[in-house]
Amino acid sequence: MTLAEKILSKKLGREVCEGETVEVDIDLVMTHDGTTPLSAKAFKEMTDKVWDNEKIVIIFDHNVPANTAKAANMQKIAREFVKEQGIKYFYPEGEGICHQVLVEKGHVKPNMIIAGGDSHTCTHGAFGAFATGFGATDMGFIYATGKTWIKVPKTIRVNVVGENERITPKDVILRICKEVGRRGATYMALEYGGEVVRRMDMEGRMVLSNMAIEMGGKVGLIEADEKTYEYLRKVGVSGEEILNLKKNAIRVNENEENYHKFIEIDITDMEEQIACPHHPDNVKDVSEVVGTPIDQVFIGSCTNGRLSDLREVARVLKGKKVHKDVKLIIIPASKKVFLDALKEGLIEIFIEAGAMICTPGCGPCLGAHQGVLADGEVCLSTTNRNFKGRMGNKNAEIYLSSPTIAAKSAVKGYITNE
Amino acid sequence: MTLAEKILSKKLGREVCEGETVEVDIDLVMTHDGTTPLSAKAFKEMTDKVWDNEKIVIIFDHNVPANTAKAANMQKIAREFVKEQGIKYFYPEGEGICHQVLVEKGHVKPNMIIAGGDSHTCTHGAFGAFATGFGATDMGFIYATGKTWIKVPKTIRVNVVGENERITPKDVILRICKEVGRRGATYMALEYGGEVVRRMDMEGRMVLSNMAIEMGGKVGLIEADEKTYEYLRKVGVSGEEILNLKKNAIRVNENEENYHKFIEIDITDMEEQIACPHHPDNVKDVSEVVGTPIDQVFIGSCTNGRLSDLREVARVLKGKKVHKDVKLIIIPASKKVFLDALKEGLIEIFIEAGAMICTPGCGPCLGAHQGVLADGEVCLSTTNRNFKGRMGNKNAEIYLSSPTIAAKSAVKGYITNE
Repeated sequence: MTLAEKILSKKLGREVCEGETVEVDIDLVMTHDGTTPLSAKAFKEMTDKVWDNEKIVIIFDHNVPANTAKAANMQKIAREFVKEQGIKYFYPEGEGICHQVLVEKGHVKPNMIIAGGDSHTCTHGAFGAFATGFGATDMGFIYATGKTWIKVPKTIRVNVVGENERITPKDVILRICKEVGRRGATYMALEYGGEVVRRMDMEGRMVLSNMAIEMGGKVGLIEADEKTYEYLRKVGVSGEEILNLKKNAIRVNENEENYHKFIEIDITDMEEQIACPHHPDNVKDVSEVVGTPIDQVFIGSCTNGRLSDLREVARVLKGKKVHKDVKLIIIPASKKVFLDALKEGLIEIFIEAGAMICTPGCGPCLGAHQGVLADGEVCLSTTNRNFKGRMGNKNAEIYLSSPTIAAKSAVKGYITNE
Repeated sequence: MTLAEKILSKKLGREVCEGETVEVDIDLVMTHDGTTPLSAKAFKEMTDKVWDNEKIVIIFDHNVPANTAKAANMQKIAREFVKEQGIKYFYPEGEGICHQVLVEKGHVKPNMIIAGGDSHTCTHGAFGAFATGFGATDMGFIYATGKTWIKVPKTIRVNVVGENERITPKDVILRICKEVGRRGATYMALEYGGEVVRRMDMEGRMVLSNMAIEMGGKVGLIEADEKTYEYLRKVGVSGEEILNLKKNAIRVNENEENYHKFIEIDITDMEEQIACPHHPDNVKDVSEVVGTPIDQVFIGSCTNGRLSDLREVARVLKGKKVHKDVKLIIIPASKKVFLDALKEGLIEIFIEAGAMICTPGCGPCLGAHQGVLADGEVCLSTTNRNFKGRMGNKNAEIYLSSPTIAAKSAVKGYITNE
């Protein structure tokens, strides 16, 4: 069985396999300021009390601080829902991006079924959790019942092998997007493995899982290992619970599995990868786009706004200045990342270099309120989507890269890996 | 003669007095991202080369980072104007609020005539500069010729006396707004003096001058003194130039002047002051509004976003948490203030307390893109305006206070001076 089948089988207490539609109990639900009001509306058409107010987490990250009266009113509705339902875990504006906060606060654990009111909920697959996004109607039903149906997905196994110190997790996932294609994994599980993934820390693995949805993937799974448990320990999960998780650990044996497709990526001779306008699978070797002039660089998001990313950016920016024609926006993925970066002196390096720092949240990624581009402008971004208009202007262009490339390019004023 | 008359007389080389309309040479021009494009448009209808590209300063502060494609396009136009005209002093997104950056970079000096494309240009009156705001058509003419006409204003002299350690410059100016009224100084000069003003540092004096416009004032003047020169020294003005400024120092002699009105404010028994909805002159003693529940607190702006303000806020917030029902937004007035606050550990205190920190700029003050209120919400703000809808929602209420009161209230969840 694949990792997806094994997680669902363990959950249901019987063997399930791809193609079967099953009803499952949800272990953890997350909605944000954008999706809570609509989910709450759908929920209220069904009933008036949520199934479990300790399993629903609400996090404000999309429009923070509120950019319009409409956004503020949406947040007000969500706040009232939190109070009325006695939601135990509410993280308001400034706490950070939902996918990061959920992990940092120890909510995410292996083998969980996680339903998120956000397409990048697949990020938590990095912890071996079956985590996926739902629309408001489904989410309303989940608020009410704690249940949903899932069609057990086919799986594409991606093994990443080789050694190459220039290649970051972002380069790996962009290359995978290129190989699989934007519709290549529609309603399938992506299962990432191989020596490169095993060597990656949890922050790197989250980058891979985060972008599963860009190939149409339902989930982006990675088998839990010692690194997973060590991370859980750091975010406050008890030793007892970790022991229990280890006892219930799910192991994959690639040779035995029945994959829909098997892809191997060897990074040894790979160049850094850049997604070009207007889709994350329009990926080229950096040498093909070196020299492209840029007007803005955004470093942040649920893909690449974590401490390891900011450390790398600071390493590049230290003592340098952002190019005079470039606007550089850096947004830590969470309040914790912001504080850690502050204490390490990274924020000072960023500001000295000429970067703008904003409140932890989604920022420019969704084009709603911060760092919107002008007509004809080009942005290099560490985010996960470069669709036409994604950053608020259909007449602008977005390239996606690793934080390393983004920082180097911000200094030079054009795309570069030097 | 009043300070306004003396500055204009020195500039023109002949005695002028109130009521006379004079043409003057402008020493310094400032426009921001909101007013540069319109001013440039007006300018281009007249000519194609600015009169002096070393005397025009352009600063981006209103919508930073750009919140809409429209704002980004406006900034693009302003950037192109900067390049095309060879504007020497351009401070892009992230440098801070125009009125703060202008001062910090040593552009503002006593006896100058300063034309700003922003109503709070009067802030620079704190340095004994005749500084006032102009609309885009006037500004276009000034870009082109370096000249404008001014009707020499009548003057209201305000002397502030007494001692009271609870009273901050913001309390003083709110009390003055109450005394003078929203139309009480229309097209007049306000001239601030007295022992309290003499004791104030330059950051405090800027608070007084900043709000002259809230009474309709053309300028808000304070005589330059040793504190002024010391500040100029710190921001890099040469010793030679300071010596020259001292030689040309303008002194007022209150007893000799011909004031339109003379007001004395004794702070000795004064309470802290709060401007209530919906105007800065609707000012009450704090005891009259204590207990008013608040949903948001904003600390920042060209009125109260400086280092001394942030130090005071940190003193109050240290080791405390923002009330769970309150959104606290803190925005340093400039990149320099941000860096100084960072190095002093203030930013860490703010984030630990639960505040959101945004890129230096005008932020929520103008209601365009950050911290917009929901219907029915109440904000306590350290800014200068609480007009209906000012912060982006006509169905919300804004109170104005000092940073001290704002910080204390953020912790309690209601307006308080405890």
